Amino acid sequence: MSKLVECVPNFSEGKSIEVIDKIVAEIVAIPDVKLTDKQMNADHNRAVITFVGPPEACKQAAFNACKCAMKLIDLRTHKGEHPRMGATDVIPFIPISDVTMEECVELSRSLAKEIAEKLNIPTYLYEESAATPERKDLAYIRKGEFEGLQKSVKTDPLRKPDFGPSELHPSAGATVVGARHYLVAYNINLNTNNLDIAKAIAKAIRFRDGGFKYVKALGFEIKERGIVQVSINLTNYTGTPIFRVFEAVVREAERYGVSVTGSEVVGVLPLQAMVDVANWYLKLENFSANQILEKKIWGGENE
Amino acid sequence: MSKLVECVPNFSEGKSIEVIDKIVAEIVAIPDVKLTDKQMNADHNRAVITFVGPPEACKQAAFNACKCAMKLIDLRTHKGEHPRMGATDVIPFIPISDVTMEECVELSRSLAKEIAEKLNIPTYLYEESAATPERKDLAYIRKGEFEGLQKSVKTDPLRKPDFGPSELHPSAGATVVGARHYLVAYNINLNTNNLDIAKAIAKAIRFRDGGFKYVKALGFEIKERGIVQVSINLTNYTGTPIFRVFEAVVREAERYGVSVTGSEVVGVLPLQAMVDVANWYLKLENFSANQILEKKIWGGENE
Repeated sequence: MSKLVECVPNFSEGKSIEVIDKIVAEIVAIPDVKLTDKQMNADHNRAVITFVGPPEACKQAAFNACKCAMKLIDLRTHKGEHPRMGATDVIPFIPISDVTMEECVELSRSLAKEIAEKLNIPTYLYEESAATPERKDLAYIRKGEFEGLQKSVKTDPLRKPDFGPSELHPSAGATVVGARHYLVAYNINLNTNNLDIAKAIAKAIRFRDGGFKYVKALGFEIKERGIVQVSINLTNYTGTPIFRVFEAVVREAERYGVSVTGSEVVGVLPLQAMVDVANWYLKLENFSANQILEKKIWGGENE
Repeated sequence: MSKLVECVPNFSEGKSIEVIDKIVAEIVAIPDVKLTDKQMNADHNRAVITFVGPPEACKQAAFNACKCAMKLIDLRTHKGEHPRMGATDVIPFIPISDVTMEECVELSRSLAKEIAEKLNIPTYLYEESAATPERKDLAYIRKGEFEGLQKSVKTDPLRKPDFGPSELHPSAGATVVGARHYLVAYNINLNTNNLDIAKAIAKAIRFRDGGFKYVKALGFEIKERGIVQVSINLTNYTGTPIFRVFEAVVREAERYGVSVTGSEVVGVLPLQAMVDVANWYLKLENFSANQILEKKIWGGENE
């Protein structure tokens, strides 16, 4: 089966379409790499590009994009609401299909090393690739942003990059690279307009307040429908599967005499996340995503 | 999204690997067509080839395979346990992804016409493509087999082919072409060794005895595990979805104080069949298989 990773680099440019189009051109020039999303935010002055492909191809695309951004984006004149420390601010790799998290960690380390060596941009490893527990957290690494880091990276040993010089690149700053899990955005709707119930259920299931390890959740009103919603970010759908969260919300809602009327997947999600749902409810024995006909065909397997 | 159909031609040769390999070579020579299975049975003296691809490519592959089989297989000397009437005995087309049943019916009619006109082999339309209710049934069309049809096709107006001459091809006989639904083979296991219970549940859910329209089912013993199994053929997973059959079996088993311990999908199944399961249990709103990341990537969509 063909290996597939997702890469979602964030660039510190949210206004100039020409700049972002030049960066995107570097990405789509790599064979087998497919662009799946491109978001620009002028207030944040930041762009988020999503692409998917075989691991090595994605690494090459990310490197070329980072090199291009170094030439076109100057942090010394950059202003925006979103915190940032580099022209290419952060590059996460996400395992999608037939790739382990370990392989993505290795990929991110190898890219971080290459950026540091070839472009002379200091790089930090975060999330699953982090060398210390604190550096798992992007906000911790980025504290002080471009301006603050210029001094502290030279003087504070805790701010020393994982690769490259202990000095920011004059215009491109520093870049954070790492591997993380796919994030599933998932909402569950309740047949009530009582926001307190949605908030109480969100609190019951989220990690922060004692709930599931990989759940972030909030309660919202959906005014136009006269209902409330438990809005969920699942930061690791393998560790905390969709069906388990759904069943927990159904049970919590019951306690208030309320029903779940529906749920929504926002955007796309990996095939395995859906297969896990069917697998659990049908009590499947020995089922594999490779039994999905389209995966057999499109995934490149042939006899 | 890219259109995908499956084609499963049956050829009257189950012993000579060379003959079948020549036929397969014709199929895989067509761009974008992928071979997914090849089964030969010497007792049946029959081969079943499965391939998948865009509709027109699959039609071309099926025509070339049929032409090749006409040259290499002679029904006058063919013997085997499985009923047959042609060198290429039957060619079903099955919609897999982003293709309607109507498109597959049209594809099968067009192929049946081409085989009749270019190869002078009479063709019959069956299943969803049939012109009359009786001809939906392959066994009805094939009654008397190659030997019996040689006479009746000339004399009995009910046996007249849909396309081509009212006379069998001297060596290649006649070919049945049509469109049908994907067949899902699905088994449900019970925590009892009482075969009567599996048989009673199979009877309750199958069409023949008043059950679901698209269910064929039997009860079996799985001796090595000391359990029984309801073995199901789902002839249309859209009309009678997997989850509905599963839930019905769970409920019927309860009536005997028995539990469902697991279920098995035999072989492969289309993505949509799995999405339908997740969709139902999670009460998804507006979910589409196009939200599966791999489909977005492998299905050929790009921005």
